[in-house]
Amino acid sequence: MQIIDGKKIAGEIKGEIAEEVIRMQAAGRRPPHLAAVLVGHDGGSETYVAHKVKACEEVGFRSTLIRYEDDIAESGLLSCIARLNADAEVDGFIVQLPLPGHIDEQKIIEAVLPSKDVDGFHPVNVGRMSIGLPCFVPATPLGIIELLRRYRIDTCGKHCVVLGRSNIVGKPVSLLMAQKTQPGDATVTICHSRTKNLADITRQADIIISALGQPEFLTADMVKDGVVLIDVGTTRVPSQETKSGWKLKGDVKFDEVAPKCSYITPVPGGVGPMTIVSLLRNTLQAAQQR
Amino acid sequence: MQIIDGKKIAGEIKGEIAEEVIRMQAAGRRPPHLAAVLVGHDGGSETYVAHKVKACEEVGFRSTLIRYEDDIAESGLLSCIARLNADAEVDGFIVQLPLPGHIDEQKIIEAVLPSKDVDGFHPVNVGRMSIGLPCFVPATPLGIIELLRRYRIDTCGKHCVVLGRSNIVGKPVSLLMAQKTQPGDATVTICHSRTKNLADITRQADIIISALGQPEFLTADMVKDGVVLIDVGTTRVPSQETKSGWKLKGDVKFDEVAPKCSYITPVPGGVGPMTIVSLLRNTLQAAQQR
Repeated sequence: MQIIDGKKIAGEIKGEIAEEVIRMQAAGRRPPHLAAVLVGHDGGSETYVAHKVKACEEVGFRSTLIRYEDDIAESGLLSCIARLNADAEVDGFIVQLPLPGHIDEQKIIEAVLPSKDVDGFHPVNVGRMSIGLPCFVPATPLGIIELLRRYRIDTCGKHCVVLGRSNIVGKPVSLLMAQKTQPGDATVTICHSRTKNLADITRQADIIISALGQPEFLTADMVKDGVVLIDVGTTRVPSQETKSGWKLKGDVKFDEVAPKCSYITPVPGGVGPMTIVSLLRNTLQAAQQR
Repeated sequence: MQIIDGKKIAGEIKGEIAEEVIRMQAAGRRPPHLAAVLVGHDGGSETYVAHKVKACEEVGFRSTLIRYEDDIAESGLLSCIARLNADAEVDGFIVQLPLPGHIDEQKIIEAVLPSKDVDGFHPVNVGRMSIGLPCFVPATPLGIIELLRRYRIDTCGKHCVVLGRSNIVGKPVSLLMAQKTQPGDATVTICHSRTKNLADITRQADIIISALGQPEFLTADMVKDGVVLIDVGTTRVPSQETKSGWKLKGDVKFDEVAPKCSYITPVPGGVGPMTIVSLLRNTLQAAQQR
């Protein structure tokens, strides 16, 4: 059993990106520039955005944080997006979700110029990914594929079972795993809340990608020996062991499942750290395409 | 065992569309207008386009056929698309594929205004479908979903195995069958040329949607009793029984598989007739959204 060390891989990729930034500057170009728009003061969103800004600094990107109170009108946010779309000094930007209820999230997503949509949420990028064309792939699926690539895990012809059908993880990672690429070329089964006899399906899987958000849902009796397990779940559960009073749990009951796996991602330190570096990769790509 | 009569359902839908056209005209509106662009003289393309034009006439749509020789420059075709995009008298249009080798098909597809893209091939429509937003769904997947709906086939929680991962059938129908809708909510497995032990997978399927284009590939030993079988394959095979010298064969060895099925689509007369009415439905939708 080998632990897939997402933290280590993420560190390596950050190093590679930082070197690329140095090369760009040596060639007389400015460093990539990511802008983040944060509306309101949601604790989770504050943390995510802070991590993204910090990651930009680590690799030498410029970053800009634009903050609004949660009573900003939709039109105000759309104006902000129009400015960022037009700003030649900004290569890519994200609008941190969720947004307050009076703002139409889909409208905001579709207002972002696809060539600056480093979250990969715009329908043009979703569609191009589905077709197999160059695009921005959402951060979590991109991070998962990169982990499989760096650990040289053979996916061709394998049975990959994806748990969850969300627009930002389940659906895109299913499409990527089924595509005629490496990693990819897998037979893919998409499972979700309506799936019957789930354990019968997961026991057939060579690779499981779990994005349910149900802590310790996947138990040892649900997987076969030698499975590759990618755990996307990150749920905060109360804990007396930590100062914060909570700890992160994945979808997998790690202690009992890990011994059966050929590879497994831990939580934390697996897929999570890959998500932010994937955003950095997309921003670098956006800068290089300009 | 019940035969899913695509020809009959297609006829019913044409009748419904024709009634809607009469209502539109009674309300003082012009009938929907579909334009088709045909480049060169490929026999298959000629036939398909002729069928589409004829179907338009049957339901009272206007139709326009624009023909070019196969030496038309890409820029010429792009100008034609720009005119159709701008023409308020045209609700939707298609560019019949394949195009000659010197023309970039993807560039042509992306030049079509998404709101007139009744083939559903533009990345914006592909992406919106993946996300579950209103869009134009490609004709074949739309026709399959409509057959399941009209025959009231329960798909929720069923295991649906899709054979083939093409951009126009396999991938979109997989996404639709997995979506939180009815028909939909199925556990979906996408199989393709790299899939191992295919028969082990198909034997578990409650629903099989086969879009391989391999005549009589699916045999009785590969399916379980009671399966719902949707056969998208249409391959011309030589035949001494017909005047034309060929007949259409599906992916399914019909005579031996049909007795095991709860429902099965024949070839011809199953999915095929639904494809053109799906194009009509999309054109009607385009006209109503204008």
